[in-house]
Amino acid sequence: MRPGHDDRRDNDARAAAGNGLLDRRIFLKGGAAAAGAFMAFASSESAAAPPETPPGMTMSGAPLSPYGSPAGFEREVTRTLIRSQPGTTGAGASRTPLEALEGIITPSGLHFERHHNGVPTIDPAQHQLLIHGMVARPLIFTMATLSRYPMESRIHFLECSGNSGAMYGATPPAQTCGQTHGLVSCSEWTGVPLRLLLEEAGADPRADWILAEGADAAAMSRSVPMAKAKDDALLALYQNGERLRPENGYPVRLFLPGYEGNMSVKWLRRIKVTDTPTMTKDETSKYSDLQTDGKSLLFTYPMEVKSVITRPAPGLKMTGQGLYELSGIAWSGRGKIGKVEVSADGGQTWAEAALSAPVLAYALTRFRIPWKWNGAPAVLKSRATDETGRVQPTRDALIAQHGANVIYHYHAIQAWRVEANGEVKNVYA
Amino acid sequence: MRPGHDDRRDNDARAAAGNGLLDRRIFLKGGAAAAGAFMAFASSESAAAPPETPPGMTMSGAPLSPYGSPAGFEREVTRTLIRSQPGTTGAGASRTPLEALEGIITPSGLHFERHHNGVPTIDPAQHQLLIHGMVARPLIFTMATLSRYPMESRIHFLECSGNSGAMYGATPPAQTCGQTHGLVSCSEWTGVPLRLLLEEAGADPRADWILAEGADAAAMSRSVPMAKAKDDALLALYQNGERLRPENGYPVRLFLPGYEGNMSVKWLRRIKVTDTPTMTKDETSKYSDLQTDGKSLLFTYPMEVKSVITRPAPGLKMTGQGLYELSGIAWSGRGKIGKVEVSADGGQTWAEAALSAPVLAYALTRFRIPWKWNGAPAVLKSRATDETGRVQPTRDALIAQHGANVIYHYHAIQAWRVEANGEVKNVYA
Repeated sequence: MRPGHDDRRDNDARAAAGNGLLDRRIFLKGGAAAAGAFMAFASSESAAAPPETPPGMTMSGAPLSPYGSPAGFEREVTRTLIRSQPGTTGAGASRTPLEALEGIITPSGLHFERHHNGVPTIDPAQHQLLIHGMVARPLIFTMATLSRYPMESRIHFLECSGNSGAMYGATPPAQTCGQTHGLVSCSEWTGVPLRLLLEEAGADPRADWILAEGADAAAMSRSVPMAKAKDDALLALYQNGERLRPENGYPVRLFLPGYEGNMSVKWLRRIKVTDTPTMTKDETSKYSDLQTDGKSLLFTYPMEVKSVITRPAPGLKMTGQGLYELSGIAWSGRGKIGKVEVSADGGQTWAEAALSAPVLAYALTRFRIPWKWNGAPAVLKSRATDETGRVQPTRDALIAQHGANVIYHYHAIQAWRVEANGEVKNVYA
Repeated sequence: MRPGHDDRRDNDARAAAGNGLLDRRIFLKGGAAAAGAFMAFASSESAAAPPETPPGMTMSGAPLSPYGSPAGFEREVTRTLIRSQPGTTGAGASRTPLEALEGIITPSGLHFERHHNGVPTIDPAQHQLLIHGMVARPLIFTMATLSRYPMESRIHFLECSGNSGAMYGATPPAQTCGQTHGLVSCSEWTGVPLRLLLEEAGADPRADWILAEGADAAAMSRSVPMAKAKDDALLALYQNGERLRPENGYPVRLFLPGYEGNMSVKWLRRIKVTDTPTMTKDETSKYSDLQTDGKSLLFTYPMEVKSVITRPAPGLKMTGQGLYELSGIAWSGRGKIGKVEVSADGGQTWAEAALSAPVLAYALTRFRIPWKWNGAPAVLKSRATDETGRVQPTRDALIAQHGANVIYHYHAIQAWRVEANGEVKNVYA
């Protein structure tokens, strides 16, 4: 940084909250005078002539490829594998490296995984989907048949209800942002509205539930209210333009916008129309929320409003004092994000961040706000409000209400402490 | 298909245009009676009991993976490599398999490629971007520096101006849809507005142009009007959430929404602020439009309104008469798509297709419409209109205006002929 440069610009940088948060609008078009406030870090030495010819310009480059991969220099940007059942081959989860990503789309190769007995190999030419139970006409669908049907495309997040569960612990996890919060990802999903198939099968009007069963070796099964099945449930065939990835349910998965992830049953083979929930192992021994009084909550479906700052965040390091743009993601299983506020002084004062268009229901929303870091330790927080008015609680308030025996549905305000040396740590603050 | 089943539903299927096109709204929620019209193809035999346990349920599945790949059963869904300069290692293009995709996002591994001397390997820790020429302060930016700057995320298509160029030929190309029209793809791009950096460098108000140069061995260079550079140009760092893929300009590319693809210079190393266009080889010997009178048009930047039906399309086959959903993509370099009309009788009558939300400026827009195929040969067409009122011309009208010496900027109405045996062919009709 060139000394004195920042000071010259201070008049242009409008404070929005304490400890250096600036107004989110200062870089809108026409704000030319303010723009310089960010620009203290480019080098003007030796800039009068073009840089030396880099080696890549002196030889022909690599050839065309049938299917591309990330750059070799990005090889450390991977999912973090966390097996929950040691000794099993494929039961566990892998987490999206949120701190390395931008925008709202998660590349399919980095979408989080959660399997209960590994990823089955399913030949789409052999796979069948059965709709049966309380229906007038039981029906079997092949994948070729489904491809003739009306489809819808929607950008939706998917979050495992166990995401951020380590934050219920007594001490904050010493992990990267993605290792702690990376059981959430967002894709464009395309598929057939389940409603149409239930209508065709003639679902009994007295049937208030369905059972969805996956074709994995765990036969992962969940009960879903018929109201949701007939509202916006999709039989997803495509993810980010191409057919589903194996770890996301190839060749077909259920997708329930906003609901806890494992209800969007992968490798879907069977939908049974029922009058009551089936009470499967996956909704009784798992995915129920143990309360402080020893009772468990069942059927806690919508993922509540949540946000996290992804840059800076644990796993990244600040590169010296001065101006930055903070960037993060917010989402809600109740609909669209209404606003995101950010604090740089541990929650004493808050400023509203800019939301990147389009802001879509049940999708990640990217927020950004400029921050002038003075080099001293600081605690950053983000607080999202969804379109229903629900606001992220503090960690204390969440635990007071929900207890800390549970590992699911953590969605409290996250605090990152920026140290004077630029490191970023997960803290309870 | 079960005989007679369709007839039972005919009263519910509202005709929207000739030869079987149905109203796009018949499958909206509440249209339960109409839904059955599509549902003639599921099997109800032996559907009373669950299908037999598939082999994947009898053994543990595959383990978690750090970075995922498509299913093995999808290995034929690749880019088609078409080298335009035989004997060179990396000059040419590869095309997106549009007929295999859905929605509006193109997976980055299938984004089209167009290289003039292969894909350079660039270490982001070494790469520099220079802004110089008619500026008050020449500046050099490292990738680490750029990562502090304000960013924007936007979903935009990118189309090579040579896309569909074979359609100028005397006979229609016997290729798949993607091989003919697959030099268009769509991603979420995230990067720094170029406007901010030009302001910081102090671009001379008399400078009406910039030159953008790539760090490939072709030093691919294009002149860009300053008005565009200061409007919505991005220095893109991320594509579909992760850092740019090498074949799309890693670690940084220029992105000019709506403009012909090669102006969005990849591997960007230098922006020179100039008072006139630089007249590089890449805008004189190439990427200029030879007219019938022997003169060439220079600087034909926006890609005009265009659409193509991707299902059915050459490369796919119809699976028997009856109901289908037609699906396709539309886009315009002038802004948003206003509407897409579809004809199933070679253009005699047209019906408006449904557009899938969100409809975004300079992005692919997915359109869909139900079609009841009677099994006889039929000619399908789509015709897009953008928000400025521009309409796709017929092929004859485009050639009458533009000539057929040119290979760029083909955007006429596309006709697919569906044969009685279900094959789909590219025809001039």
